[in-house]
Amino acid sequence: MYTVHVDSPDPRFGNMLLEQFGGANGELAAAMQYSVQGLNCDDPARKNLLMDIGTAEADPLIAIAGGGGVGLINSMGSAWTADYLKITGELDVDLRSNIAAEARTRIVCERLINFTDDRGTIDALQFPMTREITHMKAFMLALQSIGKDPLEIGKIPPTEDVVNQYFNDSTGTGDFGDKDARGPWNEGHGWQIVNAPAFQELQSSATGARKSNGGA
Amino acid sequence: MYTVHVDSPDPRFGNMLLEQFGGANGELAAAMQYSVQGLNCDDPARKNLLMDIGTAEADPLIAIAGGGGVGLINSMGSAWTADYLKITGELDVDLRSNIAAEARTRIVCERLINFTDDRGTIDALQFPMTREITHMKAFMLALQSIGKDPLEIGKIPPTEDVVNQYFNDSTGTGDFGDKDARGPWNEGHGWQIVNAPAFQELQSSATGARKSNGGA
Amino acid sequence: MYTVHVDSPDPRFGNMLLEQFGGANGELAAAMQYSVQGLNCDDPARKNLLMDIGTAEADPLIAIAGGGGVGLINSMGSAWTADYLKITGELDVDLRSNIAAEARTRIVCERLINFTDDRGTIDALQFPMTREITHMKAFMLALQSIGKDPLEIGKIPPTEDVVNQYFNDSTGTGDFGDKDARGPWNEGHGWQIVNAPAFQELQSSATGARKSNGGA
Amino acid sequence: MYTVHVDSPDPRFGNMLLEQFGGANGELAAAMQYSVQGLNCDDPARKNLLMDIGTAEADPLIAIAGGGGVGLINSMGSAWTADYLKITGELDVDLRSNIAAEARTRIVCERLINFTDDRGTIDALQFPMTREITHMKAFMLALQSIGKDPLEIGKIPPTEDVVNQYFNDSTGTGDFGDKDARGPWNEGHGWQIVNAPAFQELQSSATGARKSNGGA
Amino acid sequence: MYTVHVDSPDPRFGNMLLEQFGGANGELAAAMQYSVQGLNCDDPARKNLLMDIGTAEADPLIAIAGGGGVGLINSMGSAWTADYLKITGELDVDLRSNIAAEARTRIVCERLINFTDDRGTIDALQFPMTREITHMKAFMLALQSIGKDPLEIGKIPPTEDVVNQYFNDSTGTGDFGDKDARGPWNEGHGWQIVNAPAFQELQSSATGARKSNGGA
Amino acid sequence: MYTVHVDSPDPRFGNMLLEQFGGANGELAAAMQYSVQGLNCDDPARKNLLMDIGTAEADPLIAIAGGGGVGLINSMGSAWTADYLKITGELDVDLRSNIAAEARTRIVCERLINFTDDRGTIDALQFPMTREITHMKAFMLALQSIGKDPLEIGKIPPTEDVVNQYFNDSTGTGDFGDKDARGPWNEGHGWQIVNAPAFQELQSSATGARKSNGGA
Repeated sequence: MYTVHVDSPDPRFGNMLLEQFGGANGELAAAMQYSVQGLNCDDPARKNLLMDIGTAEADPLIAIAGGGGVGLINSMGSAWTADYLKITGELDVDLRSNIAAEARTRIVCERLINFTDDRGTIDALQFPMTREITHMKAFMLALQSIGKDPLEIGKIPPTEDVVNQYFNDSTGTGDFGDKDARGPWNEGHGWQIVNAPAFQELQSSATGARKSNGGA
Repeated sequence: MYTVHVDSPDPRFGNMLLEQFGGANGELAAAMQYSVQGLNCDDPARKNLLMDIGTAEADPLIAIAGGGGVGLINSMGSAWTADYLKITGELDVDLRSNIAAEARTRIVCERLINFTDDRGTIDALQFPMTREITHMKAFMLALQSIGKDPLEIGKIPPTEDVVNQYFNDSTGTGDFGDKDARGPWNEGHGWQIVNAPAFQELQSSATGARKSNGGA
Repeated sequence: MYTVHVDSPDPRFGNMLLEQFGGANGELAAAMQYSVQGLNCDDPARKNLLMDIGTAEADPLIAIAGGGGVGLINSMGSAWTADYLKITGELDVDLRSNIAAEARTRIVCERLINFTDDRGTIDALQFPMTREITHMKAFMLALQSIGKDPLEIGKIPPTEDVVNQYFNDSTGTGDFGDKDARGPWNEGHGWQIVNAPAFQELQSSATGARKSNGGA
Repeated sequence: MYTVHVDSPDPRFGNMLLEQFGGANGELAAAMQYSVQGLNCDDPARKNLLMDIGTAEADPLIAIAGGGGVGLINSMGSAWTADYLKITGELDVDLRSNIAAEARTRIVCERLINFTDDRGTIDALQFPMTREITHMKAFMLALQSIGKDPLEIGKIPPTEDVVNQYFNDSTGTGDFGDKDARGPWNEGHGWQIVNAPAFQELQSSATGARKSNGGA
Repeated sequence: MYTVHVDSPDPRFGNMLLEQFGGANGELAAAMQYSVQGLNCDDPARKNLLMDIGTAEADPLIAIAGGGGVGLINSMGSAWTADYLKITGELDVDLRSNIAAEARTRIVCERLINFTDDRGTIDALQFPMTREITHMKAFMLALQSIGKDPLEIGKIPPTEDVVNQYFNDSTGTGDFGDKDARGPWNEGHGWQIVNAPAFQELQSSATGARKSNGGA
Repeated sequence: MYTVHVDSPDPRFGNMLLEQFGGANGELAAAMQYSVQGLNCDDPARKNLLMDIGTAEADPLIAIAGGGGVGLINSMGSAWTADYLKITGELDVDLRSNIAAEARTRIVCERLINFTDDRGTIDALQFPMTREITHMKAFMLALQSIGKDPLEIGKIPPTEDVVNQYFNDSTGTGDFGDKDARGPWNEGHGWQIVNAPAFQELQSSATGARKSNGGA
């Protein structure tokens, strides 16, 4: 069996490596998430994609874990849990979860590389780190190929005016990180700013409206 | 205090509603995820966005929970856990996690609406369901405004040839969901298909290469 | 944003500080416990108290966490869980849980202070440590103002003779911490001591009595 | 072996009964909490109390569970976890946690009684429900006998002026349960009300003071 | 893809089926346990066995889950956790854990079969139920082939006289399931019965001996 | 109370000792597993065995924990959870789980002994380590005395030909630990080897058979 050649064994770094396998953003979580999504998926072509990546994800583990012991715990000793997984059975939503999952797993890999000087380990981690970009690309293209608008999730349309209101909860002053700021996320793009006090009144009256509907 | 007018109280649906508050994809998880990301964020403008949405996310809870008891459990009685959260401290990665989180929360809302005929409840759920699209839009625009290539995560570049290889783990026949399929996720776009046996040999030799590097 | 001035950064102490935020007896647990109790509370005046302290509890977090990263884990890396919370929806019982919770959180603060020499950190921790006494006082007075006997919980009265029996399970000799002792908790105050063997017979016959009742 | 005579077996109620044994506020949690506190306790007399009640707590279980199967799960199928326990090793604090724990366990018993008409079950539950009052009384007297002021926790004194300030976070208007209220918990008893905006400024300046201290 | 033909869809039984996949004694736990044991195993022949069964265990899942949705939760909605796994890295100990694991998984299958009348489902469950016996047999033979005495675990020998003492904690009377009984587990086979009071004294004196050793 | 004499206090080893008490394979898990199995057991003689060992298991804890603090966490700070337990209510299956559990707990003891040079601690650990062999012996004899064939679990017989097929998932070549090996677990003893591709076809056709049955 293949063994990563480790020049200077380092138990503390060995512990960190567990994160890449059994951590919240590790390979096991990714493999499980895509495989279960694949089992539930009715679209045969994208089911195939999910199963392919779910399987391929699990492989490099062996190379990395080869030289030492592994366990289903993270770098701080917490047992792996399915609470890490994001599975809805809604294909476009699951693909978004997967894009984000690959990005997180890649960061874990990069941080591990930054914590070691061992050449063999760095080479071994470069492989899954590259593959995570491959998987991101595949999931992004699969999402695009479904042909839905990026903001179209589910079937029920959002309430038209409310959807473009940015609720500004910051007071604009103070010590607590709530300095007001502007950017494309609350300016242009159809946004309408609703400031905190006004937002609360608005919510009350919207609520009043719903109340009368609901109570009727 | 505001109370949602419920025409026909329904304990089973009340249980389901817990999912929207204390579930893995519920409002509490979203509010926590964005607030903690915000606390850790060094970019003041986007920190402001994260805190604004983290706060605003928590508000509608009250309206929905107002008429009855709430608890920090999901619809199946499992206690809320921070294992639900996806927080890396890497801003672009966190924003991707948030886009996916909003999509999931929206699906939870839509499914709840589909399970009830009660007008007041439907109206109450329409509000957060709309807001989740608002938040998705804000997070997407914030991500774009960072100006990174969609496949650029972290600082270390992926290995060039490996990144475009699609490892085809399917045998192309059989009963187990592994029928081969083609789509933009493994065709065009620079993809190079590597089939299962070849892929294993390739991995072995790549491994061999790494072995000699590592062992040198 | 406000930053605690830390003279000598200390990663190990930074880890311990996580306990004060995301630990079983940390601020997040307190804030969550009181807010959810408040949402469920029918008494408007004490609901207001629960919401006020639930909110105020969360504020100092920001000051302490300001200079570094936070996460919803405790000092040993375990993810925060709603299993930490004690919520019954019974106001007097919830207030007792809160009095105990504040006492525990205060001990966490004091232990953290004892582990550091950093002046800025000590000053920062003195604030929540003081506030926890404030909250204890408020919860104690709120409990008194309900006007129930301290031993009156719920509505069904306890069985009269059994309630004052102290079951003495200690043999009075031996190496296992079971040396007999007397104090106001088993002497005077209406107490009747029932020793281990007798206690078992008594339980059997009480059981017999119940058996005939139950079986009739 | 003793068997509770159940007139009409009721699987759904049987499930609920699991709460009394393996729930967050069940007998197992109580027995574990007191026993571990007892093991850690340096005061031999109160160690004896903790061990006595820890042991006695576990006994009635057998009577109740006798007729059917038990498991270490709560009524909703969640596995028992030590996260339910509140143990600090600080005797007066632990006694407060125990007083609250007994009150919660008693409420669980009372709610179970209210869910059944079966005479044998009611009789069987009356026993632990009574004993929980016994234990509360013992823990309260043990706490008093330590002779500390009810607001004296740990060794470091609270900051004098801050400890009597009630931070009023309610705006005094609105739909969200934040109507202002007065009671002994924020009126008389040395209280000084500090309203939300003032409270924030005060916190900022207190913070400023600490900042200069800390930075010096 | 293959689909189990289900004559009468039954959502409640569908829930139960989750136990066979994601439960504490389900196929996922078995597949994970054997695969991780295999990764850690230094004996190439038995490593091969562990990997073969770890892989083969995962396959039938697909057939059973084929017709509906699956998730990594058990029949009561609790997320799968690695706390279910028993992995020590000690080959003979791990094989014993696996023998027990297969026996438990088989019982889960049999109970599921007893809960349904659906022919297709029964046929589908008969397959893994049979395979679990196959795996038990393989693990038992692998354990025997190591050639250790059944009571030889680890390297340090047990204390000779203490190892054959059966500590009889039962009083021999009473209502609490503690009626004394004799069988090969405490009679013959070299057993020496030590009754409860004597056992406690013995333990004290053994302890005394250790105390003098330890204190020397 | 008895105190283990520790020559050189060692906080890191103290942490490891927690594993022996509150770990997945610790004494608390063993005591709980056997006691709950005992409560559920209908066979009075073996119920007595389970209760005796369940009680006796808990005793040595006190001696070991005596000198310091204990808590219901493992050596890595994870809270004890009932997910560690293996309880089915099927006596022979439960006895197998207990045999494996004792073997694991013994390994934990031996590893702890190998991590310390402190004489008092080694002596103290030798006692439970010995008792675990005692318990294994008792559980093995109790299992034998039931008089079932070692491969007879539950009531439904396995499918005759399938039960003796060893599915060989290894390709016999390659770098991933899948080198083919022969031993009593797949050779002789009635075994019939079924290689990977053939095994998949076989499974498909078996499936086909079931399909026609199921669909009829």
